Amino acid sequence: MFEMMFQTVARAFPVSSISPVSRCVSFGVRRFCEKNPTKLRVSEALLGAEVGEDVRVQGWVRSYRPQKNNIFLHVNDGSSLKSLQVVAPAGKSDPLLSFGCAVEVKGILKKSPHFKQPVELEAKQIQVIGECNPVDFPFKIKERHSLEYIRQFPHLRCRTNAFSSLLRIRSEATAAIHSYFKSNGFLQIHTPTITSNDCEGAGELFQVEPPGTTFAEVGSFFSVPVYLTVSGQLHLEVMSGAFPRVYTFGPTFRAENSQSRRHLAEFFMVEAEISFTESIEDLTKVMEDLFRSVTDSVLAHCEEDVDLFHKYVAPGHRDTVDDALKKSFPVITYTEAIDVLKRSSEHFTFPTDWGCDLMTEHEKYLVKHCGNIPVFITDYPYDLKPFYARDNQDHPKRTAAAVDLLVPGVGELCGGSLREERLSLLRSRLQECGLEETYSWYLDLRRFGSVPHGGFGLGFERYLQCILGVDNIKDVIPFPRFSNSCLL
Amino acid sequence: MFEMMFQTVARAFPVSSISPVSRCVSFGVRRFCEKNPTKLRVSEALLGAEVGEDVRVQGWVRSYRPQKNNIFLHVNDGSSLKSLQVVAPAGKSDPLLSFGCAVEVKGILKKSPHFKQPVELEAKQIQVIGECNPVDFPFKIKERHSLEYIRQFPHLRCRTNAFSSLLRIRSEATAAIHSYFKSNGFLQIHTPTITSNDCEGAGELFQVEPPGTTFAEVGSFFSVPVYLTVSGQLHLEVMSGAFPRVYTFGPTFRAENSQSRRHLAEFFMVEAEISFTESIEDLTKVMEDLFRSVTDSVLAHCEEDVDLFHKYVAPGHRDTVDDALKKSFPVITYTEAIDVLKRSSEHFTFPTDWGCDLMTEHEKYLVKHCGNIPVFITDYPYDLKPFYARDNQDHPKRTAAAVDLLVPGVGELCGGSLREERLSLLRSRLQECGLEETYSWYLDLRRFGSVPHGGFGLGFERYLQCILGVDNIKDVIPFPRFSNSCLL
Repeated sequence: MFEMMFQTVARAFPVSSISPVSRCVSFGVRRFCEKNPTKLRVSEALLGAEVGEDVRVQGWVRSYRPQKNNIFLHVNDGSSLKSLQVVAPAGKSDPLLSFGCAVEVKGILKKSPHFKQPVELEAKQIQVIGECNPVDFPFKIKERHSLEYIRQFPHLRCRTNAFSSLLRIRSEATAAIHSYFKSNGFLQIHTPTITSNDCEGAGELFQVEPPGTTFAEVGSFFSVPVYLTVSGQLHLEVMSGAFPRVYTFGPTFRAENSQSRRHLAEFFMVEAEISFTESIEDLTKVMEDLFRSVTDSVLAHCEEDVDLFHKYVAPGHRDTVDDALKKSFPVITYTEAIDVLKRSSEHFTFPTDWGCDLMTEHEKYLVKHCGNIPVFITDYPYDLKPFYARDNQDHPKRTAAAVDLLVPGVGELCGGSLREERLSLLRSRLQECGLEETYSWYLDLRRFGSVPHGGFGLGFERYLQCILGVDNIKDVIPFPRFSNSCLL
Repeated sequence: MFEMMFQTVARAFPVSSISPVSRCVSFGVRRFCEKNPTKLRVSEALLGAEVGEDVRVQGWVRSYRPQKNNIFLHVNDGSSLKSLQVVAPAGKSDPLLSFGCAVEVKGILKKSPHFKQPVELEAKQIQVIGECNPVDFPFKIKERHSLEYIRQFPHLRCRTNAFSSLLRIRSEATAAIHSYFKSNGFLQIHTPTITSNDCEGAGELFQVEPPGTTFAEVGSFFSVPVYLTVSGQLHLEVMSGAFPRVYTFGPTFRAENSQSRRHLAEFFMVEAEISFTESIEDLTKVMEDLFRSVTDSVLAHCEEDVDLFHKYVAPGHRDTVDDALKKSFPVITYTEAIDVLKRSSEHFTFPTDWGCDLMTEHEKYLVKHCGNIPVFITDYPYDLKPFYARDNQDHPKRTAAAVDLLVPGVGELCGGSLREERLSLLRSRLQECGLEETYSWYLDLRRFGSVPHGGFGLGFERYLQCILGVDNIKDVIPFPRFSNSCLL
């Protein structure tokens, strides 16, 4: 074991640039040698490999307890839910040291005498880098704030345990999605955000123009009116004429005037498109594999963070997730689903006749009916589905080869279909909708080397709601945008 | 070696759904047993592990040569630049078999007698899945079309060798970027596309509204006027108050009325933000590491695709890339750069006085001057930089801690700065700009646990131009959007 000399050292930062609130308070009289001790992330320090060594940790104070002989801090740097306990002699502590402030702590990493943590940092020097007035700071020490409360502070909520856990989970799930597709031979395509396609649910589009554009000038920047994308599907279909497995993962938009717990004006969607499909099972297999693979990865790599949600936000929800992973997802047809609804003793607000869309109340019932695990509904009425859905050519109840994945608590998580790859059928349907000219480029895809193909989209925020049990979609996205709200 | 029986088999696909253009032509009289042979991707078949086995390959015909005794096809499925050669006896070939059509081929994988390819597929059955009329198809067999020509067909250009190579490179570079950040402890943040921040270069913003919004109603959907993001920086800064390393990678927008080879209305940007910085070197190190790491990965995993560009699109460009990777990137200050420009004998169109912005002509000269490798320019005049750039508090030539990375052929690839973390300095600057109220949330980040931090953005399309030597930015993005053009 070595002894280092200690002093209050100026930072390597140029003198002119030291923050006016930077202060050091040092304990003891030993002097550091000029070399700065190794900088560790909190998650690294907690592994304990450097016990007995001089180390340096930077982060934010998540708890501050002055006692008679010692002060105890918990320092967090976002690398894990757990903070590092810092112990320093009382009496000389910096008056700016408080809950929420930013600090750099130098000291010796020691085995902790307490069972709650493996190691603690015996401080030689605590430098307050950025102060935090506890009166003005909206989060209070030792209080557990509700998700609703912290949502009011979008610029600060990442400093709470719950939201920092969410952000780590979101980042891990994102990486797991990319990893799933890469290891299964999918090419990532950056589908565009701005598009001139306007047909799908035109009432829910956002239009894009330079500011100050008058009504007469609409469309002048791009020579056509343009919109924010509602789906990358058609652009992925372009690519599936050369790449049999493609995907995209990015923001998607709906101008829905809704305050629902499941809708946002801007949300993230994973979409995949697969060529040379033989049946709808080619899609359900990928959807189910993706769900399992990403969930396994999140549970393995973000155990503590997920536990926080399953303990404090949605107690008992872990069982629902485990059930989903244990069983394979049932597949029932829309026609069977309608039979189930008709036979049930439940009172539904919306009709359950063949040909009617399934509403949230129906989806919830069907999920419960199937054992409260994710369930695929296939072969919806042809007339309910957009022009690109593949005609099953069945009679007398004409259906399209479309599929939804319904999940507990959330309802629709994924929607997909085989696409109509047959030129003549697609052309007649576009003619019926008066869209043949608009989609002549899309018909071209069927004119030149068309193949059976299909795909699906998965709402990423709904996926996070589903595995974490979070009730409101605004609590699983860094900066929620919805009607009447676009903060920051 | 085993012999399988052969017959023209109906596909597993339901009868009703077989495409009207699906046809099989089989060669020989043997019968397949009912089991379909193993399906291989072209890249897998080319590895040769299944030589001697019955296999099945699906893809698109990239060349078609009927000869006296045999026909030769090249079948490509996007899994590699290389296609698989298929050989079949002449005489019985399907009249729909042509350049550009989609096929499924079953046969025996054999060692090829030709040095050009390791294996070839001796066809027992070729099924045309989707025909392609060679007269109407805009790409012609054996022609090498220019990037300008194929750009006219955004829905079909992925079917050319050059653009499919580009898409594989783009997907690999994207994965390498995520991988670099993940392995260096960065958290991925999905910064929003729609934002109410409007201060940066207000003239270049796109505004977002539901269609039909009148002038009086602007801002009514979200209760405030909203725009497409020009940068995720401010949102990343929010996160750097809890996570010392964060990044984002997504679409970014400029309503610039430009037909330049380096600008798009929608482009992809990588942005990173780092807390507890000590100097601008904390940023340049990450920029340089990121560039090297991603480029190494692309060169290693997309060798043939990159070679296509370095052979046919930008001959000799490989040397430029290798030079960049061999040397460490020089760092010069803006003041030194101005000295270099003033001392040069070059005639510049724009002034080279201290305080003037560096223009493309200056950037190109500086890159050449430094040996035609990437070069960092640091410490720009304070007055040229936005409100968030950190004041160096130097005199008499006041500078900000900002940095650009200039690269051969492209000019500015990255821009970054340390951010003003000192509350009083930031507040006075915002007051000067009349923005104190608008950015009160941003000032809050400095009120509560502020730390020295900084970050940068990298233009992803410019990066691809830089390593591939592609002159026009429209040729490195799947669906380019620029003034007067938003196809599909």
